[in-house]
Amino acid sequence: MPVEAVRWAEGELVIIDQTLLPTEYREIRLATLESVWEAIRVLRVRGAPAIGVCAAFGVLVGVREKRPTSAPDAVRAVEETVNYLATSRPTAVNLFWALERMKKVAEGLAADGSLKDFWHRLEAEAIEICEDDKRRCRAIGDHGAGLIQDGNGVLTHCNAGALATAGSGTALAVMFRAKELGKQFCVFADETRPLLQGARLTAWELMQAGIDVTLICDNTAAQVMREGKVQLVVVGADRIAANGDTANKIGTYSVAVLAKAHGVPFYVAAPYSTVDATLPDGAGIPIERRSAHEVTHGFGRQTAPDNVNVYSPAFDVTPAEFIAGIITEKGVLRPPFAKSLAAHA
Amino acid sequence: MPVEAVRWAEGELVIIDQTLLPTEYREIRLATLESVWEAIRVLRVRGAPAIGVCAAFGVLVGVREKRPTSAPDAVRAVEETVNYLATSRPTAVNLFWALERMKKVAEGLAADGSLKDFWHRLEAEAIEICEDDKRRCRAIGDHGAGLIQDGNGVLTHCNAGALATAGSGTALAVMFRAKELGKQFCVFADETRPLLQGARLTAWELMQAGIDVTLICDNTAAQVMREGKVQLVVVGADRIAANGDTANKIGTYSVAVLAKAHGVPFYVAAPYSTVDATLPDGAGIPIERRSAHEVTHGFGRQTAPDNVNVYSPAFDVTPAEFIAGIITEKGVLRPPFAKSLAAHA
Repeated sequence: MPVEAVRWAEGELVIIDQTLLPTEYREIRLATLESVWEAIRVLRVRGAPAIGVCAAFGVLVGVREKRPTSAPDAVRAVEETVNYLATSRPTAVNLFWALERMKKVAEGLAADGSLKDFWHRLEAEAIEICEDDKRRCRAIGDHGAGLIQDGNGVLTHCNAGALATAGSGTALAVMFRAKELGKQFCVFADETRPLLQGARLTAWELMQAGIDVTLICDNTAAQVMREGKVQLVVVGADRIAANGDTANKIGTYSVAVLAKAHGVPFYVAAPYSTVDATLPDGAGIPIERRSAHEVTHGFGRQTAPDNVNVYSPAFDVTPAEFIAGIITEKGVLRPPFAKSLAAHA
Repeated sequence: MPVEAVRWAEGELVIIDQTLLPTEYREIRLATLESVWEAIRVLRVRGAPAIGVCAAFGVLVGVREKRPTSAPDAVRAVEETVNYLATSRPTAVNLFWALERMKKVAEGLAADGSLKDFWHRLEAEAIEICEDDKRRCRAIGDHGAGLIQDGNGVLTHCNAGALATAGSGTALAVMFRAKELGKQFCVFADETRPLLQGARLTAWELMQAGIDVTLICDNTAAQVMREGKVQLVVVGADRIAANGDTANKIGTYSVAVLAKAHGVPFYVAAPYSTVDATLPDGAGIPIERRSAHEVTHGFGRQTAPDNVNVYSPAFDVTPAEFIAGIITEKGVLRPPFAKSLAAHA
């Protein structure tokens, strides 16, 4: 039901060009290695899992382009392709992880086997990376959908949707699954300043899936809660510490505090791989600052004075005590998270 | 120290053209009645008190233009001018109030006196309307400045500044006065979606006055509070019910809830005339909805899907229990507001 951000269609890598959303929906075929690199670089494909899957298929595109004539030749082609694609987004963990997986498969195949067999094994690995992601999204949706009741209003922040994964997303997977199950509910999407992922992507995805969505400015979430229109909050996560403290897009902590004040349960949806057991709590998560320009010139027009000071952290950390549950592919984990997260390690 | 949104300079009406802010500062002379009407209409001058003062001076401009040759002639000129200016912003209460005051003065003068005397009395009335507003702003600043201590961070929302009045504003008057008194403090200005009055106007005004201001997205207020950078919140008000419930720009209630959760006192600054004693509480204040277009096309570019549902209330109501004090020209009123507001009626 949700859109497919990235897919392998009979030997062709096809993505939704997210730079055109929400005003234009266009699928594009990435037929050359250069076009894959560019698509990742300029965010035609975005969201850590979607980037990883796109890169895995990108390795296939790159190897095919180099026309290797032997298995050892093909291994070199994989290595060159992997090294090249790794330069597209220097800090994307899933990108490196997926490329590493592709490289390992190639190296394991170097010594023996035919070129045809090499290709099939390489393609199978990329498809497995993609299917893995889809299964994880589906499982998150399955576990989380039970939290949504008929008549509920669900509030979300930023975009933790199908557009960020190869599957149905994380927070939005819960809503897609609830919709499949025939539940009647509506969603309030925070527009999510400064980059408006909620307005541009979440609202669009939910509309595509026929889910009743209402866009609000971030500062309106409290009012919507006060009006009794929100029964639960579901958001994604960038990183989860061992005690459950959760880093996510700036504004998530604000929503969590407002939810608590209005007696609304606040859920995080994320694959278990988001848990960083090396961090005892959220204090160790550095708060990256983003450019003032995104706030002062966000949409093609200057909307603040020249040289104004801007404080624009990329994300914030929601303390575990604000979180009612963490929806993972392993189930909905409940507080105390130090215990429930450790139990699934 | 603050900028002057509207002033009468030796017989000339001069305003800051706010449609050019924050990228250009330009004072313009409104030499014709038509230009006064247009300036109010297209928001070159905005903010209820500033509009009222501009209209009062606009009556002088209109009468002068009509070149009356007798006192009764001049009364007719006032009436025509008043009727015309009243059509510039159909729902602006201060506009009608100021025009009515000018008309009453003219009518009182109709029967007797010279034309020169007529003009002087009319001009004196407009100047008095302006000075009244300045005094009120100054008194709010005097009463509120004591709330700011050296080293404090002050958070504000929207624009309750000099640009909205003939004087130093309401919430911002407190900061201008604290600055005059030599206090060391900084301000966090919420950008205030959808129309960005915080980014466009508040940040600009405070920078003009040399006050240390940092612009934040609305969803970042909670994080700034969590970092311990905010010691008090001061905002303006559109309407205050008899029990202290306060209607103000959308997002104000969100700030109030967040402030309470972080132990930060939340103050409202407003002239006493903002109190509507006919309303027992905030439940009676209708929540006007604004156009979806402001949210989806707010920055000169479409940033949300076609036909998306949008919920965009113009303001919200902060219940009295979130308010530590109401800073008026009569002093800082404290809870219970039903009592303190009534005592100053």
